[in-house]
Amino acid sequence: MRCYAQLIAAAVLATLRSLTAAAELTPAPNGLQRPDGYPDWRLIGVSHRTENGTLRAILGNDVAIAAAREGHTKPWPEGTVLAKIVWKERSHPKFATAIVPDALVHTEFMVKNSARYAATGGWGFGRWLGTEQRPYGTDANFAQECFGCHAGAKDSDWVFTTPVHLP
Amino acid sequence: MRCYAQLIAAAVLATLRSLTAAAELTPAPNGLQRPDGYPDWRLIGVSHRTENGTLRAILGNDVAIAAAREGHTKPWPEGTVLAKIVWKERSHPKFATAIVPDALVHTEFMVKNSARYAATGGWGFGRWLGTEQRPYGTDANFAQECFGCHAGAKDSDWVFTTPVHLP
Repeated sequence: MRCYAQLIAAAVLATLRSLTAAAELTPAPNGLQRPDGYPDWRLIGVSHRTENGTLRAILGNDVAIAAAREGHTKPWPEGTVLAKIVWKERSHPKFATAIVPDALVHTEFMVKNSARYAATGGWGFGRWLGTEQRPYGTDANFAQECFGCHAGAKDSDWVFTTPVHLP
Repeated sequence: MRCYAQLIAAAVLATLRSLTAAAELTPAPNGLQRPDGYPDWRLIGVSHRTENGTLRAILGNDVAIAAAREGHTKPWPEGTVLAKIVWKERSHPKFATAIVPDALVHTEFMVKNSARYAATGGWGFGRWLGTEQRPYGTDANFAQECFGCHAGAKDSDWVFTTPVHLP
C-alpha cells in the first residue's frame, strides 16, 4: 500500500513539473507551443552552417522517425515534428580542427498540420531563443520569414534535411 | 485468442530478427560486439572535423544520457556507451554554405568497463566501417590507436565530447 502511495505521489509530482514547465514557456506568436520532451527525440541529421558559424542537430518525434526510416518523407506525414537545435560553433580546445557546439543560439520546430498551417506549406514554424527559450517574432507573420527561407526546399516538402540512415 | 497468437508471433519474429542482425555483425578484434539499438539512442553532441571533412553525431545509451544530464562525466559511470556516427561531408545541393552528411564512413563506440578495459583507460573501443559495418583492425592492438588519439582528452575521462544541454 505504501508502495502504491509513493508511485501515485511520484506520478502527481511528475505531472505537476511537466505542467509547470509548459506553463512557463511562452508559445510562438502563431500560437505554436514548444513541443515537450524533444531532448529525448531521436536523430534525423546534423549540419554545419558555415556562413553564420553554427552547428545543428535535427531530431524527430516518433512520427518523424518512423517516416524517415520507411522513406515516407515526400510528403512527411501529418503529426511529424522536427526539432533543430542550433549552437554557435567553436574549435575544440584540445582538438583545434574539430568544430563543436558552444552556446545555444535557439531551438526551432516544424510541426506538420496541413489544415492548420496551410499558409506555410502545411508546417507550423516556431523558434525559441537562447537558454531562456524566449519565443522569436512579434506577431504571427514571423512564420513567413521561416517559410520564405524554406522555399529552397519546396521539392522535399519544405524540409532541407535528408534523414540519415544508421546501419 | 487470435490477438494473443498474433502478438506472440510478432514478438518471436522481432526476437529472431534481432538475433540474426547481431549474429551477422562481426565483433571488433578486441571482442567488443557492436551495441544493438544505437540508432534509438539520444543526443550527446555533434561535431565537424574540418581536417578530414567529416560530420559526426554522438549518441549515448541510457546510462550515458543520465550521466550527461546530471553532470557526472568525470569519470563517466560504468556501463556508459557512447556512439559516434561519422559521415563524409558535402554541401547541401540547395543551400551551398550548409555542410551536411554524405556517405557513412564508420560508426565508433566507447564502452566503459574499467576492469575489462583497464589497458585503454577503462574504455573498450570499437569501429565498424561503412554501410556493411565491417570491423576495423586486424588484432586487439587496434584499440591502442584509438586510445593514443584520445590521450588529448585524458582530463575528461578520455572523451572529447562535452555533452550538450537542451533547455
